[in-house]
Amino acid sequence: MIQEFKVESSRREELIDITDQVQRAVQGLKGKDGACIVFTPHTTAAITVNENADPDVVRDILYGFGKMVPETGYHHREGNSPAHIKSSLVGCSEQILVANGKLVLGTWQGIYFCEFDGPRQRSVLVKMI
Amino acid sequence: MIQEFKVESSRREELIDITDQVQRAVQGLKGKDGACIVFTPHTTAAITVNENADPDVVRDILYGFGKMVPETGYHHREGNSPAHIKSSLVGCSEQILVANGKLVLGTWQGIYFCEFDGPRQRSVLVKMI
Amino acid sequence: MIQEFKVESSRREELIDITDQVQRAVQGLKGKDGACIVFTPHTTAAITVNENADPDVVRDILYGFGKMVPETGYHHREGNSPAHIKSSLVGCSEQILVANGKLVLGTWQGIYFCEFDGPRQRSVLVKMI
Repeated sequence: MIQEFKVESSRREELIDITDQVQRAVQGLKGKDGACIVFTPHTTAAITVNENADPDVVRDILYGFGKMVPETGYHHREGNSPAHIKSSLVGCSEQILVANGKLVLGTWQGIYFCEFDGPRQRSVLVKMI
Repeated sequence: MIQEFKVESSRREELIDITDQVQRAVQGLKGKDGACIVFTPHTTAAITVNENADPDVVRDILYGFGKMVPETGYHHREGNSPAHIKSSLVGCSEQILVANGKLVLGTWQGIYFCEFDGPRQRSVLVKMI
Repeated sequence: MIQEFKVESSRREELIDITDQVQRAVQGLKGKDGACIVFTPHTTAAITVNENADPDVVRDILYGFGKMVPETGYHHREGNSPAHIKSSLVGCSEQILVANGKLVLGTWQGIYFCEFDGPRQRSVLVKMI
């Protein structure tokens, strides 16, 4: 069984905290102990875990990625090659441990959907393993 | 049970679509529902998921990585430190959901073996979890 | 069941080989065949797999990351935004196959805890799946 939920991005690039939706998906799957895979079926998006306390952190992550990845020199005509590169750098899935039905995360960790080519409606899949 | 297949790279750097080989490995493992781990036991290679429609995307990914990672300043005498860096940035494994015996991938997603220090013969391992 | 062990970093940035600790955790979990998830619950650290033969490789990886990620332009006041960026680039977990109670790793592969904002005491979680 796979649970799916939708994410609406509202900007070109955006990190959206999906920790609560993933927790609800694990409950929907009656996940007790094990781990869940959080997977996004898109090639210009990603899933990551990072700080959920100071919103400047996610702003700084997008800023840093923007500085690292070159802006020009691409062949792909859609003009979104930097988004494809960021997707492969961050990765389209994460695995999160689950204990007693709860996601096992550090004090400052949240799960983020990374939009690199929005705004769009996106999909996230969750499965217990 | 682990299934193994070989990949032959023909250039220094190359993204090779291995979606079909992974699908066959899942069939060989009689995987029905769950997920599979795709792992490469090399330190100058990686596994990623990205667009399999326009071949310019994988060209642009290699181009972007090449611009991001510095060319000089390394101590490792084999001269392939950029390949080691790219391996850790992209990661040596991916997890792919499986439903009804089929890989669960988005419309534009393919699974790629990333060669960063070829040409070589490489190995990929697949296991159902 | 989740096994936890501690890692003590002694520098600002450091890659620490934790292969032996992960192998012992798998034994403690009586893991025989499957895979284990290695997860760190911190947002300025990561887990990766890379070469464990020449120590210059891990030095070069930290050097390369340092050159790639911008040094200035951040808003987060703690001053450790590069560490958060590196954490999301490398990722806070890895999955390693296990066969006959042993980690399945390539000849040159070791598992590394990546410290990007030390020195600190850190935690690593291991679970069989």
